[in-house]
Amino acid sequence: MRDLLPEEAETLNFVVCKARKTAQLYSYKEVITPVVEPYELLSAKSGEEIRSRMFIFKDLGDRAVALRPEFTASIARLATTALKTEPQPLRVFSVGSVYRYDEPQRGRYREFWQSNFELMGSNQPEADAETILLTNNFMKATGLQNYSFKIGHIGIIRGVLNQVDTDDKTQNAILQLMDKKEYDKALKLVKGKEWRMVLQGLLKIKGETPFETVEKIKDCVDGCEEAAAAVDNLRDVLWLVDECGCPVETVEPAFARGLEYYTGMIFEVNVPELDVALGGGGRYDRLIEVFGGEPTPAVGVAHGLDRIALAMQTQKIVLAAWQGIRVVVIPVQESMRGEAIRIAHRLRDAGVMVEFEVMGRKMGKALEDADRRKMDYAVIVGEREMDEDSVVLRDLAKHEQATIKIRKLLERIRG
Amino acid sequence: MRDLLPEEAETLNFVVCKARKTAQLYSYKEVITPVVEPYELLSAKSGEEIRSRMFIFKDLGDRAVALRPEFTASIARLATTALKTEPQPLRVFSVGSVYRYDEPQRGRYREFWQSNFELMGSNQPEADAETILLTNNFMKATGLQNYSFKIGHIGIIRGVLNQVDTDDKTQNAILQLMDKKEYDKALKLVKGKEWRMVLQGLLKIKGETPFETVEKIKDCVDGCEEAAAAVDNLRDVLWLVDECGCPVETVEPAFARGLEYYTGMIFEVNVPELDVALGGGGRYDRLIEVFGGEPTPAVGVAHGLDRIALAMQTQKIVLAAWQGIRVVVIPVQESMRGEAIRIAHRLRDAGVMVEFEVMGRKMGKALEDADRRKMDYAVIVGEREMDEDSVVLRDLAKHEQATIKIRKLLERIRG
Repeated sequence: MRDLLPEEAETLNFVVCKARKTAQLYSYKEVITPVVEPYELLSAKSGEEIRSRMFIFKDLGDRAVALRPEFTASIARLATTALKTEPQPLRVFSVGSVYRYDEPQRGRYREFWQSNFELMGSNQPEADAETILLTNNFMKATGLQNYSFKIGHIGIIRGVLNQVDTDDKTQNAILQLMDKKEYDKALKLVKGKEWRMVLQGLLKIKGETPFETVEKIKDCVDGCEEAAAAVDNLRDVLWLVDECGCPVETVEPAFARGLEYYTGMIFEVNVPELDVALGGGGRYDRLIEVFGGEPTPAVGVAHGLDRIALAMQTQKIVLAAWQGIRVVVIPVQESMRGEAIRIAHRLRDAGVMVEFEVMGRKMGKALEDADRRKMDYAVIVGEREMDEDSVVLRDLAKHEQATIKIRKLLERIRG
Repeated sequence: MRDLLPEEAETLNFVVCKARKTAQLYSYKEVITPVVEPYELLSAKSGEEIRSRMFIFKDLGDRAVALRPEFTASIARLATTALKTEPQPLRVFSVGSVYRYDEPQRGRYREFWQSNFELMGSNQPEADAETILLTNNFMKATGLQNYSFKIGHIGIIRGVLNQVDTDDKTQNAILQLMDKKEYDKALKLVKGKEWRMVLQGLLKIKGETPFETVEKIKDCVDGCEEAAAAVDNLRDVLWLVDECGCPVETVEPAFARGLEYYTGMIFEVNVPELDVALGGGGRYDRLIEVFGGEPTPAVGVAHGLDRIALAMQTQKIVLAAWQGIRVVVIPVQESMRGEAIRIAHRLRDAGVMVEFEVMGRKMGKALEDADRRKMDYAVIVGEREMDEDSVVLRDLAKHEQATIKIRKLLERIRG
């Protein structure tokens, strides 16, 4: 795990802020769930891969607990308990740190930050499209350039595999292998030459445009109703996001996103500079059931906020610096400390950032330090000026100073 | 641990926001440190009480780690490593969740939220005053009423105890007992009748005003130079915060704040409605040394954000609701979904909160739902109006609707 020093913390906070703003624009209500949850809950829906990388321990009450590896389980728990009676669709937003015991590498940390959006209650393609569109909105708000979406549909391959009566376990194994791009191994597990050829064909499809790719996929799965319905659903989603100018780069039928629980559309967003996705999600209509609720269609997306921050850094996106004026207030004599601290207090009440001289340094030293740290103004509070309700205001950039009345100070500082 | 549902999450976020704003006004740089830290680090400075309430576990690398019970150890670690070469004074801010295995009760949770300010490098009373003043600023910003400060100085009692050569262990035991208000037990541990009487006297002191209390304390410790110097220092701090109108309710010499590491001024802020403090801090000049750094004077404060949120709730402080306009966009026919989603997209780009109809409901149902949830407007996108580049805009409060051109939509919604 790592520390975020001031500049990094500022970027992460900026990204959190944009995620929260996106949640507001799309009417997602924020909830805050605990970092520590029962192991049983957190492991219920995760694939083996996430399970083996959880931070698990016993609490003082001897219960097996873990640090959350993602938000979805906690949100599903809420949806089946405290939020059970809320009207549908239910839109829920969360943001915070999550934990996975990975080998740390660029863009991958053991403690990392996610924003998470869940939309529960709708089986319509508009809901799928919404998770992509809000991701688009969020990416745009961070200032990132050249990001693009990859979209797929887990129902296409599952449809083909169901056609040849493949059991769930084998289906998951095949999808996992495809996710790791071990296509040959994956294809070996497929029963029946005809449909193995169809799958092999699917893997190679690449149209000039996303829509052309979709039509080629549709042709390829001809004769498999379930897969064809999945392609129609994917086309619907693609059409809706395309209407809003969302940059979809590729449509990939064999893209599996690691998690076993997806049941429909899946997507990722990437930038060329990073080889890990900045976010991704999809539809998982069995989610709420797994946590003991009524069958409820659901679609969601999680964004990797550290990765977004890293992408911003790589693209050299500079955050707007603190817009306000930065002032130091320095008492000349010890007797002036009370007057000086009062002036500092009043300036802050007016929204000015003030550093009060707390080191007991002599004027020259304190000014030198303020100068080096590029503060805007020094307010110098001395007995002589104070007798006339005045202070010395020094413009540190211009190396100019003037004696001014205290009542005019704020006005002068604000220029 | 508990969930914060939308309303509670909003209040906590509001409080976090005000803490961060205070940090900006006082020029504290924010850092983000991990929730999980080595047990050794976290236990180095905590008293036994906190140590026994930590969530401790082994990570997959078999290292003893724990969930942070507070921020100070992590900040001290940074001050002796990554921030070691920063100029002093060093002002550092953190905010986030911390963990203690307590019996949950009103205002006390196992996962709770703190904001933490550390000011390192200054031994001047201006630094002590700053931690109180920024707390005052923060409290005011939350809208809380009737909060007040209690101030003390650990050097007064330690001074007296040093006068009769009391070893550190006994001193800590006495302070712990005093903190629990077990004064008789505490006094029994004091050597020598004369100074025991002095301590007994100290416990009873109560002036009409904080300044009067300070003078009475000064008289009481007459003959003990170390205690007298502590009283002078306390008077200095009190004077500085009083200059800024900070509401100091009481000065208590025998108030000990539970933690063994304080070396000077200590304080708490309270509201009458809660019997737990909303925040507290003080000076602990040995802190950085404990973590292997150069001896560095330091003063800090932590605020209990859940408690502040609870106090706000108890005082019935209502947050300003979402100021923006809330709109639903509903396509009348399936063929209108693309047009409708584009309109939704454009409204959000302009900062309007939009819920797109994702349930595939008929117009009447969707409008009924929007009405019940007190949305401001419904934008109804139908084929007939769209032929003339128009939509129906329905004012849900007034139960009025009109057909308007799309290009005029935003203007009309913003009224």
